Amino acid sequence: MSTLFVCITCRREGDPPAEKRPGARLYEALKEQAGDLEVAPVECLSNCTRSCSTAVTASGKWTYIVGNLDPDKNVGDILEFARLHKAHEHGLPVWRERPEHIRRNTIARVPPMQSSGVVK
Amino acid sequence: MSTLFVCITCRREGDPPAEKRPGARLYEALKEQAGDLEVAPVECLSNCTRSCSTAVTASGKWTYIVGNLDPDKNVGDILEFARLHKAHEHGLPVWRERPEHIRRNTIARVPPMQSSGVVK
Repeated sequence: MSTLFVCITCRREGDPPAEKRPGARLYEALKEQAGDLEVAPVECLSNCTRSCSTAVTASGKWTYIVGNLDPDKNVGDILEFARLHKAHEHGLPVWRERPEHIRRNTIARVPPMQSSGVVK
Repeated sequence: MSTLFVCITCRREGDPPAEKRPGARLYEALKEQAGDLEVAPVECLSNCTRSCSTAVTASGKWTYIVGNLDPDKNVGDILEFARLHKAHEHGLPVWRERPEHIRRNTIARVPPMQSSGVVK
């Protein structure tokens, strides 16, 4: 099972304070369209300067943190990437197959816990 | 068991290409001083623009990615943070106890896999 953690607190400078936070809107849009992917809300992924933020992870696979996400533009990109992550044995989607926004806005990645030796 | 993943490929713009990469030097220094912490080399943590990079993680705990690390200055900061992470049940060291460099250079964090509900 792949999990998509979504920061629901994310708000960028200049966003109207009275409106629903972009992070919360992103979470709701993803939740609605995620199908068999698990979508989980998180209060902060500590990527505030490059929000909105998500992390795609699964037991025994690499974790990817992706930022600079616009809830009105990038829901399809995130879901496409999460499905590629889910389909790959180690959670390492082929670079050229990743949506361009994901390629350009990957904040960091972390190997699965049971890694040993030099992780490539 | 807490694990400290260290990118051994990291090299910043202007680093002399003939010398050992700062990421490799950081890994070696951490490995030497880590005591009971596991230190694991990784070829890339995808945090190249804010290198050198490490990720502190443990099964069932939060994962923290930390960047802008200087192998000559920040080894103590990383180890102090990793020991706080190890000592905390959920891997959430108290903010004011974290070394200043870690507070200022946390790139992102990811909840443990088994999280449910809104993660706080």
